[in-house]
Amino acid sequence: MLEKLQIHIAQNFDFLKNKKLLLATSGGLDSMVMVHLLHKMSFTIAIAHCNFQLRGVESFEDQNFVNEYARANKIPIFITQFDTKAFAEDYKVSTQVAARDLRYSWFYELLENEAFDYILTAHHADDNIETFLINLVRGTGLDGLTGIPAINGSVIRPLMIFSRLEIESYAIENTISWREDSSNASDKYLRNKIRHHLVPLLKDLNSDFLSTFQKTQAFLQEAQTQVEDASIMVYQQVAKEKDDQVFFDLNQLKRLPNYTSYLYQWLNEYGFMAWQDIYNLVDGQSGKQVFSTKYRLLKDRDLLILSSFNLELEQRVYSIEKDQIEVKFPLNLSFCKVADISLGSNKAIFVDEDELVYPLRLRKWQKGDSFQPFGMEGQSKKISKYFKDEKLSLIEKEKIWLLCSENKIIWVVGLRQDERFKIKNTTSTILQIKLE
Amino acid sequence: MLEKLQIHIAQNFDFLKNKKLLLATSGGLDSMVMVHLLHKMSFTIAIAHCNFQLRGVESFEDQNFVNEYARANKIPIFITQFDTKAFAEDYKVSTQVAARDLRYSWFYELLENEAFDYILTAHHADDNIETFLINLVRGTGLDGLTGIPAINGSVIRPLMIFSRLEIESYAIENTISWREDSSNASDKYLRNKIRHHLVPLLKDLNSDFLSTFQKTQAFLQEAQTQVEDASIMVYQQVAKEKDDQVFFDLNQLKRLPNYTSYLYQWLNEYGFMAWQDIYNLVDGQSGKQVFSTKYRLLKDRDLLILSSFNLELEQRVYSIEKDQIEVKFPLNLSFCKVADISLGSNKAIFVDEDELVYPLRLRKWQKGDSFQPFGMEGQSKKISKYFKDEKLSLIEKEKIWLLCSENKIIWVVGLRQDERFKIKNTTSTILQIKLE
Repeated sequence: MLEKLQIHIAQNFDFLKNKKLLLATSGGLDSMVMVHLLHKMSFTIAIAHCNFQLRGVESFEDQNFVNEYARANKIPIFITQFDTKAFAEDYKVSTQVAARDLRYSWFYELLENEAFDYILTAHHADDNIETFLINLVRGTGLDGLTGIPAINGSVIRPLMIFSRLEIESYAIENTISWREDSSNASDKYLRNKIRHHLVPLLKDLNSDFLSTFQKTQAFLQEAQTQVEDASIMVYQQVAKEKDDQVFFDLNQLKRLPNYTSYLYQWLNEYGFMAWQDIYNLVDGQSGKQVFSTKYRLLKDRDLLILSSFNLELEQRVYSIEKDQIEVKFPLNLSFCKVADISLGSNKAIFVDEDELVYPLRLRKWQKGDSFQPFGMEGQSKKISKYFKDEKLSLIEKEKIWLLCSENKIIWVVGLRQDERFKIKNTTSTILQIKLE
Repeated sequence: MLEKLQIHIAQNFDFLKNKKLLLATSGGLDSMVMVHLLHKMSFTIAIAHCNFQLRGVESFEDQNFVNEYARANKIPIFITQFDTKAFAEDYKVSTQVAARDLRYSWFYELLENEAFDYILTAHHADDNIETFLINLVRGTGLDGLTGIPAINGSVIRPLMIFSRLEIESYAIENTISWREDSSNASDKYLRNKIRHHLVPLLKDLNSDFLSTFQKTQAFLQEAQTQVEDASIMVYQQVAKEKDDQVFFDLNQLKRLPNYTSYLYQWLNEYGFMAWQDIYNLVDGQSGKQVFSTKYRLLKDRDLLILSSFNLELEQRVYSIEKDQIEVKFPLNLSFCKVADISLGSNKAIFVDEDELVYPLRLRKWQKGDSFQPFGMEGQSKKISKYFKDEKLSLIEKEKIWLLCSENKIIWVVGLRQDERFKIKNTTSTILQIKLE
């Protein structure tokens, strides 16, 4: 078994020679075999051991065991301790997920700070079949069935093609000691139930199951790359990116009977959760929208528009005090008392300052807002109706700011002044407000 | 349970009303429930029962049971008997595959001859999980994990979302009798082993496993449609169809790291088996080829060329007798004694008939062929060298015919005459050979 493992490493992981390798080492069978093997083959290694403090004194015995081994074999070692339970509670995740997140973020930190080239973990073929079956039992998509790759960026898993049995044979032949995790023997976790009951049954049904399964996973990984190809190709046909927004052409998208799959793949990374609502947008009314914490998906006629979105920012109201001469955010506005009016424009209005109630307010429009458009003889008009008449798109409407005095609109900024604040014969102070 | 099944049928299979339905009925639990349910709901049904003659007297008891039920309930019935074992031996397939092939080809025959609209089978959710696990145990790609669809062309499976348990409850509630297949109880077949050991374990690990699994399969089916999308889109970019041939642009194809997956999908239907040989073609020498029984894939510079191919036809030699005035196949050639030579051309040559040894032979070129090109003063030249000098592509070379007298080439038809058969001063009979 020594020879088999050594040959595999020599043939497939030659690129690790003369690199600085950080070996994730729990002290269990798999990681101790990995350390022994790579040390024997004279790779440049260091050990990283996490104490998750989940099994009381046992956890510390593991830590001591790994530490002793490192010292005896003159292998550099890094040790850390985590309060895994507290982390799991804080972030509302399972203990297993907490342990994984803590472990990998520490590994990457070491990789960076100590200038390691790769993180090596001792995952093996049985781990992959177990993960496959866990995901199958819990429900999954294709990505949950494709397994952990042997090489994935900075993370290398040199033992991936070997079975637990082969790794154990190596340990026995080379009289390697390891620590048995007492939780492995119990059916405490789904993984252990699968390891001890489901996997043996599959191996019983096909004595060559592990290698059959590796072929199956290779096929599934290929299918997964094709799904990704399709996702990219369809995106290129359907989506246009402009000004930090993505515009999805629904007429094109809807030609695909499976378009929901594509929407899911494209939007998943933006943190959306309400998938059915998103799918409903496709045939939904113009103006409907779905939000994630930081993004918004808007149906606008034949488009779905993805843009970043900050609800708190959208609802914010900016105050403008009396005699303030300018506003820099969210718009550039200047305020200037003038002796007489000149020619007005979309970008500059003249108002009767005596009509204003300070502080003025700058805010986005809301449902129900109405104003008296300049020149319409005091007729009132809903802002929504005004926008419609001006043929503004949803996105354009959302960029519009209203300058208000109390609840009265002074100016639909950049578009139309209100009748009520215009200069009259009786006006004593003329205020010019300009959009820069 | 009656209600649940009835509601599902009413809601999802309303389109079967007033259609002629052929119900595949073994006499087992599932099919008897399907017959009972659809009969009760007044669909227009007939029963089709296959006797596979695999379980001696039991098979005939099943046949009688179904026949009796049909008569008692006044349901039209079709019965056939198969010599399944003989079929399996003749076609070298498993008994199960033989039974499936025989069954479906008979169903489709009935569909056509008796003007049925649909074939209905009683597959249920447990069948799908069993098939998934059989394929997993034996090794599979994504297509082996996506399950049997409830609606697939003319074949409808109305019970697909129900579990075996739900179907059994229906049978008990409605006092439906059925025949128990004695082979079900044994572990004789892999399916039975999976049914009795593996599936119960999965249901034990997740009590809601069957519905979880249906979601998983829906995700996998979506992934499968995306794989098919990718396959079509990449084909459109990479392949050109012309004259019954397909030209794959290797420069484009090789940009995709996973191009072997695409080649597999495109070529699978042409009966190729030697996949590694095909993948090797991509970087292989120009002129290398791989054959299936009816197709050929040829590497030609930056192209892979797929064409239909009949080896026997390619190697055939056509004889031409003395005084024969024409040949119609594989080429149109005419033979005509003339008094004098006129201007020769690529399409017509003049030869000294006394030099010919009949029957002449018309055949494709072979390695080692050589001739003495007209006008080269008797110098000999290999045909392969001649083709190279003429800059013929592989495909063009293959279309070339040689007209021979014994082993001597008279004419590289349509290209170049041989020096040895040209008209001399001593020639007494001039034969004109023309390519029409």
